[in-house]
Amino acid sequence: MDFLSLFLADFVKQLQSPTLGFLIGGMLIAALGSELVIPESICSIIVFMLLTKIGLTGGIAIRNSNLTEMVLPILIAALVGVVIVFIARYTLANFPKVKTVDAIATGGLFGAVSGSTMAAALTLLEEQNIPYEAWAGALYPFMDIPALVTAIVVANIYLNKKKNSVAASTTQESLSNQPVTSGNDSDQPNYPNSRQEYLSQKKDVANNRVKIWPIIKESLQGPAVSAMLLGLALGIFTRPESVYKGFYDPAFRGLLSILMLVMGMEAWSRLGELRKVAQWYVVYSIIGPFLHGLIAFGLGMIAHYTMNFSIGGVVVLAVIASSSSDISGPPTLRAGIPSANPSAYIGASTAIGTPVAIGICIPFFIGLAQAIGGK
Amino acid sequence: MDFLSLFLADFVKQLQSPTLGFLIGGMLIAALGSELVIPESICSIIVFMLLTKIGLTGGIAIRNSNLTEMVLPILIAALVGVVIVFIARYTLANFPKVKTVDAIATGGLFGAVSGSTMAAALTLLEEQNIPYEAWAGALYPFMDIPALVTAIVVANIYLNKKKNSVAASTTQESLSNQPVTSGNDSDQPNYPNSRQEYLSQKKDVANNRVKIWPIIKESLQGPAVSAMLLGLALGIFTRPESVYKGFYDPAFRGLLSILMLVMGMEAWSRLGELRKVAQWYVVYSIIGPFLHGLIAFGLGMIAHYTMNFSIGGVVVLAVIASSSSDISGPPTLRAGIPSANPSAYIGASTAIGTPVAIGICIPFFIGLAQAIGGK
Amino acid sequence: MDFLSLFLADFVKQLQSPTLGFLIGGMLIAALGSELVIPESICSIIVFMLLTKIGLTGGIAIRNSNLTEMVLPILIAALVGVVIVFIARYTLANFPKVKTVDAIATGGLFGAVSGSTMAAALTLLEEQNIPYEAWAGALYPFMDIPALVTAIVVANIYLNKKKNSVAASTTQESLSNQPVTSGNDSDQPNYPNSRQEYLSQKKDVANNRVKIWPIIKESLQGPAVSAMLLGLALGIFTRPESVYKGFYDPAFRGLLSILMLVMGMEAWSRLGELRKVAQWYVVYSIIGPFLHGLIAFGLGMIAHYTMNFSIGGVVVLAVIASSSSDISGPPTLRAGIPSANPSAYIGASTAIGTPVAIGICIPFFIGLAQAIGGK
Repeated sequence: MDFLSLFLADFVKQLQSPTLGFLIGGMLIAALGSELVIPESICSIIVFMLLTKIGLTGGIAIRNSNLTEMVLPILIAALVGVVIVFIARYTLANFPKVKTVDAIATGGLFGAVSGSTMAAALTLLEEQNIPYEAWAGALYPFMDIPALVTAIVVANIYLNKKKNSVAASTTQESLSNQPVTSGNDSDQPNYPNSRQEYLSQKKDVANNRVKIWPIIKESLQGPAVSAMLLGLALGIFTRPESVYKGFYDPAFRGLLSILMLVMGMEAWSRLGELRKVAQWYVVYSIIGPFLHGLIAFGLGMIAHYTMNFSIGGVVVLAVIASSSSDISGPPTLRAGIPSANPSAYIGASTAIGTPVAIGICIPFFIGLAQAIGGK
Repeated sequence: MDFLSLFLADFVKQLQSPTLGFLIGGMLIAALGSELVIPESICSIIVFMLLTKIGLTGGIAIRNSNLTEMVLPILIAALVGVVIVFIARYTLANFPKVKTVDAIATGGLFGAVSGSTMAAALTLLEEQNIPYEAWAGALYPFMDIPALVTAIVVANIYLNKKKNSVAASTTQESLSNQPVTSGNDSDQPNYPNSRQEYLSQKKDVANNRVKIWPIIKESLQGPAVSAMLLGLALGIFTRPESVYKGFYDPAFRGLLSILMLVMGMEAWSRLGELRKVAQWYVVYSIIGPFLHGLIAFGLGMIAHYTMNFSIGGVVVLAVIASSSSDISGPPTLRAGIPSANPSAYIGASTAIGTPVAIGICIPFFIGLAQAIGGK
Repeated sequence: MDFLSLFLADFVKQLQSPTLGFLIGGMLIAALGSELVIPESICSIIVFMLLTKIGLTGGIAIRNSNLTEMVLPILIAALVGVVIVFIARYTLANFPKVKTVDAIATGGLFGAVSGSTMAAALTLLEEQNIPYEAWAGALYPFMDIPALVTAIVVANIYLNKKKNSVAASTTQESLSNQPVTSGNDSDQPNYPNSRQEYLSQKKDVANNRVKIWPIIKESLQGPAVSAMLLGLALGIFTRPESVYKGFYDPAFRGLLSILMLVMGMEAWSRLGELRKVAQWYVVYSIIGPFLHGLIAFGLGMIAHYTMNFSIGGVVVLAVIASSSSDISGPPTLRAGIPSANPSAYIGASTAIGTPVAIGICIPFFIGLAQAIGGK
């Protein structure tokens, strides 16, 4: 009973934190039809500053820390990123009306990490005085990239197999016969420019392999990940403490509050997108963040007991597993799995996955950590 | 004599404050042809941050304060907002060559409040160490909304009466006869799409009532007011002290200095717009801010003596009465009184009203308060 | 030996400073194909805030300082600005394949000052605890404007002489005969709209004088210089200490770090522009910054020994001489010397000159100052 009451009290208290308050505030003013708009360029620079700050924190911490203690959490992060994609492949993909490539892409987005969600979790941990390793934020790309790469590879293997089974009979036809191609289109409604892509995928089929390196490269080159890696590198190789303490660190929470507001407004405005998506995406988007977070939490507890990984660090692992990418992931997936329907995976992620992760999973895992930690 | 010398010394001293310094600096560099441009997106985020901060201040204060002491200032704010519109209706509207609807709309804009002007006043009060109630900034919407609603209602009642007196004879003609309609247009030069609007107003005439709720809703949904209300709600219902003290509060004066610069440049560049405005608007725009401010100052002094409302709070009341809306008001009026000429009311407000309110009325009322306060 | 080792140790240490770290980081992530983009509007406001802050610093310092001690450094700054243009006129212009007007324009750009480079130098001086006069940043326009004016005047005198020698024979032809004009074009490949400009220059030839005042005016009206002069004026005539200490000063280093990142990315992306430019520009752009900086350093040392000008101030003089204008200079030159090829002077300045000035010359002159200063 003590566990539950501690957890509930903590849950309510966190809804009053400015971070979640601005998220809920954003939803409310969007619901009330406010004409407030935060300009796109402001959002970009805020994301840049938040991710650079997280990278700098991690880099400075790595410079001053024992690298061996990072190995197990990094392996856990990568493993969880891969597992999340396979969960989507063997659950969501088998639900009625759900297309397999869409399910795999959704799994990739839920395996990938949202920098804003992580930033919110780190801030809440500090507000609750729960210590965590300063390098914990640097676990981000170790889960993000494996998830996106796995999703793209699994999707291409699936498309590859499917094509092989039908290729022999239809290739001739679809090349010579326009009406047949458009017939194909009608049962693949989200497959734009299907002719060209079909041809390019046929080439991949011929090569019989998916190129993994370009996917990794593209993930690393996205604005969010590259800002974080830049911060990481500057933290390790230069002495950025003066700008860190005088600029990036003090601005962090304030900038995050603005971004939370924007995410709240966006979540509200995208609720409509879900009408186009089968109900199973809604089920997946609500259960997924908890399930993924719990797997990471469980694996993190192993590191907690064996390697003295902090309980705060376990929460960070759980939250980045709960989170789904909203900035860097979608363009990578759009390029890597062009036949998947963006309104399915982006809708599921931003309209349900992210609010659930920030608004419910973060307080849930912090509550869990405090209850377990006996604090 | 002591009163006057105190007042003058204070007036000159305030022109050296950074807030007014940046305003005058903006006018100067615009006059000298500087190519400096502050991007639009930066102005939006500055307005958002200033108004959110004012809202947060008010919300935190309301959470910790006695609500009964707010009642009288709120009533005064609303009363002044309404009175300002009627002043315009019975002075400006009767001047030669001034159309009645234009005069009413101008009164609505001068009754509405400029968030930036209020922010400048709050900052100057702090610079002069004049205390005021922390919730004073929250008086904003209580004057803003009544003024806009009153203007739209009064304008529609006026149009309604006018239509009734001519409707019987002209309706048939104007419906059947295009040339007659364009003949009407020439004596109503600022009446775009007069045919459709005439018809929709005829419907209102039929209903014989003006819808007030949409006007209130639109005022509340404007970017400035909704940022302030968001801050107010977050201040009351959450615990935003950490982001308030670490971000919104310290950034306030600096961001305001940039906005003052922009307003100075804009005021200069819009001087040209005044050529399109009849000379009586110029007279009204110079005298109006003083007259409105003095009425609010007088009523505020009653609250000062009866309810212990601070002298700083009286200045805030006077300044928001002096100020005229430059961001949220114009679109509301354009929608609510489509037959009024925007270049009349916007030109009067932004080219003369706002510079007079910030550059002259603020120092004037602060000087008055200090002289009266015996400081 | 002690001199060299001190210098080298310092050089390496400065590459670890956040200022240079972000510059190198920007080059690296651009080289690695990052999709990170800092929005244009953010860059504008950063430049505005940096230059306003430098102006405010200078203005507050001038208000509190002895003006006579500024005379010699100001004269040196102006002299160096003029000399740099003549160096380009009599070296670069005589190299093979280099057009004379292009060389003069390039000299003008290298004589003009980069606000960002100066900001980086001031920050590094503070990081190294080397004192300098607070008004040193205000030397900026005293070198910037003479350099641009000299370049435009020298170029016009050159074009004037050249025209006079050929005008008599070709004017008739080029006016009447379109093919001949396009024949001219082919040997003046970077001369867009040559017909109209030729005619307008012919008019100048007729007037036989170059108008100097418009060039000075345009330099003063550029966004960077006018922000700095605004700060200077506000520092001298108002009391901006509160916004200075609470906003412009603390934000300075952090904003600079973002701008350094942008400049690093730009420098990388413009390396390609150099292929279009003769190799001699590369040689000039590498040697120029050192040579110009050394001249200013030498003249500055005279002021150091005679007028007690600080060694940090000497470094500031040397760095603004090393730097080449990347924001305000190009549009002034494009308007003042329309026949010069922008890809020559802008390419030379931003792709080589600026990185050399920031990344090599600043550490070099700071090291030199420390070695000489016996620190």
